[in-house]
Amino acid sequence: MQRAGPISLTTVDPAELELSNEEMILSFLAEGGADFISGVTLSDKLGLSRTAVWKHVETLRKLGYGIEAQPSRGYRLLKVPDRLTQLELSPLLATHDLGRTLHHHERLGSTNAEAFQLAQAGAFHGEVVIAEEQTAGKGRRGRAWVSPPGKNLAMSIVLRPEISPSRAPEVTLVAAVALAETLKEAGAPARIKWPNDVQLDGRKVAGVLTELSADTERVHFLVLGIGVNLNTDAADFPPEVRELATSVKLARALTVPRALFAAALLTRLEAWLDTWQEQGFGPVREAWKSASSTLGQEVLVRADAKELRGVAEDIDDSGALMLRVDGRLERVLAGDVEQLRARKT
Amino acid sequence: MQRAGPISLTTVDPAELELSNEEMILSFLAEGGADFISGVTLSDKLGLSRTAVWKHVETLRKLGYGIEAQPSRGYRLLKVPDRLTQLELSPLLATHDLGRTLHHHERLGSTNAEAFQLAQAGAFHGEVVIAEEQTAGKGRRGRAWVSPPGKNLAMSIVLRPEISPSRAPEVTLVAAVALAETLKEAGAPARIKWPNDVQLDGRKVAGVLTELSADTERVHFLVLGIGVNLNTDAADFPPEVRELATSVKLARALTVPRALFAAALLTRLEAWLDTWQEQGFGPVREAWKSASSTLGQEVLVRADAKELRGVAEDIDDSGALMLRVDGRLERVLAGDVEQLRARKT
Repeated sequence: MQRAGPISLTTVDPAELELSNEEMILSFLAEGGADFISGVTLSDKLGLSRTAVWKHVETLRKLGYGIEAQPSRGYRLLKVPDRLTQLELSPLLATHDLGRTLHHHERLGSTNAEAFQLAQAGAFHGEVVIAEEQTAGKGRRGRAWVSPPGKNLAMSIVLRPEISPSRAPEVTLVAAVALAETLKEAGAPARIKWPNDVQLDGRKVAGVLTELSADTERVHFLVLGIGVNLNTDAADFPPEVRELATSVKLARALTVPRALFAAALLTRLEAWLDTWQEQGFGPVREAWKSASSTLGQEVLVRADAKELRGVAEDIDDSGALMLRVDGRLERVLAGDVEQLRARKT
Repeated sequence: MQRAGPISLTTVDPAELELSNEEMILSFLAEGGADFISGVTLSDKLGLSRTAVWKHVETLRKLGYGIEAQPSRGYRLLKVPDRLTQLELSPLLATHDLGRTLHHHERLGSTNAEAFQLAQAGAFHGEVVIAEEQTAGKGRRGRAWVSPPGKNLAMSIVLRPEISPSRAPEVTLVAAVALAETLKEAGAPARIKWPNDVQLDGRKVAGVLTELSADTERVHFLVLGIGVNLNTDAADFPPEVRELATSVKLARALTVPRALFAAALLTRLEAWLDTWQEQGFGPVREAWKSASSTLGQEVLVRADAKELRGVAEDIDDSGALMLRVDGRLERVLAGDVEQLRARKT
């Protein structure tokens, strides 16, 4: 059964959102959880006849939703299809902007590239591109990111914060915090390796790639790309990354309901973005630090031709890594971190 | 006569460049300056018959070039048409990359927008977009930039330096230095108002808008947009900017040969970009400081909702303005500067 399980969602009143009748019904059923919602209640809330409600339920069943109907008790939701279209996500979202407009694709080269184009054409803050399969996914530093069909989350979000480009890296850390927290809620307590690798048992389970269009004073828009290995099987990974990557399914033997995960992540991400806009980077920094596996560790940082070895002491107020090297404190803006000793926790 | 006048150009050997026969002839004639170049010399250098050389000269005359021919002495260049196509620019360029590929338009909304699209489609480092007229030119902070047909220079350059986005503002200062120097050579000693306004007699004569596509670690490409008011007449400026803007023609009663100016600017800009890549921001900073009208002045800086009043002491190693406010030194990353006292020089 593809139901909420360990993921909790604060849902907004579905009546306040612009949803289709199908989305409204799903939303009320999702809110009801294991309880039945009577046909009378649904027809009252939607302003539809009980026959019309029944017809919408039939439509939903054809789309793959498992909806139990008992004449005396009403309806309840047993199963949602493991898809990431507006119909699955909208009823689960408790956001004001993020994901309210969703561009769903069966297959894309890169969700970031698609979102970048949409943003250039004027897409609004919060518009989301999701692909069931990504064939040329981009990771950090031009690396590839694998996302086989129907198993993972590959999405990119258009953001339009009013910031200078120097603050863009903060958004990457905001996303890493939201990812770590959502994974933890889903039963997979992940930790963040600086700057933006989210790991389970020391292997990469999720990543963030923030791209931007800007002039030197203002960001025009950001595209926040998020990839999460949810239900990837070992055979889905190319041999060369099998030792370095994992998925929630591989690490925790859990099959993650993708729509619920995506909705929970967008909801949490928006809450963190709101906090960041209102209070600045301070609270993000604290949350990042408590979710990080890097701080306190002896690490080797590779950045272009340079290598630095030292103890990762902190991140500063712009997200840079503060590394203690031979007594001096070095500020590292970008690079790859290798942890030299296991964390004792 | 639209000749070099006060602008000197270090020309490369035209034989080393991939030029058309017309461009080659123009290049040798430009190199000759006021001297005649014999038909024999041209036919030897180009490997063409003297009749073929004559035919190419005729072609050039039809395109608006004034070429004097004397049977006993040869050819010399009297007049180049005031246009900015590859044919006018190529023979004058002493660059390895900048302007080698030129996208010339009679009219464009914004050269930066066009160059940004070309860069996304894979344009190489150094490709240049030039428009005779810009109808929706962009200035800093979303402001408009006027560029009436055939009078000014409106160009955008695709750059692909391997830098982090935090270093992008340095490119704006590199460009401001190249602009100030080229204007000075053209008889209009301009000064730079922080960060990137180039002024003559306290009025804006040129500006730079650097836009970028990047992820948080690497710049994918920069688009360096440069606008210079060369031969603008007072009536070309909208009434609301007439007090704030000027042109070389208005301020110095000089008509600037645009192709020569553009070629000199690209040549100087490339030299400065090379220095910046090889030696870092240090030499740029020194050149900027000596061309600046801001340092040493009491200024008012407006940045979003904030205002700061103080003495502009320096720029730091990332180009930020260091402002002495009530004894404290404040670092200003972006804003508009108003000079409160005239500079005593």
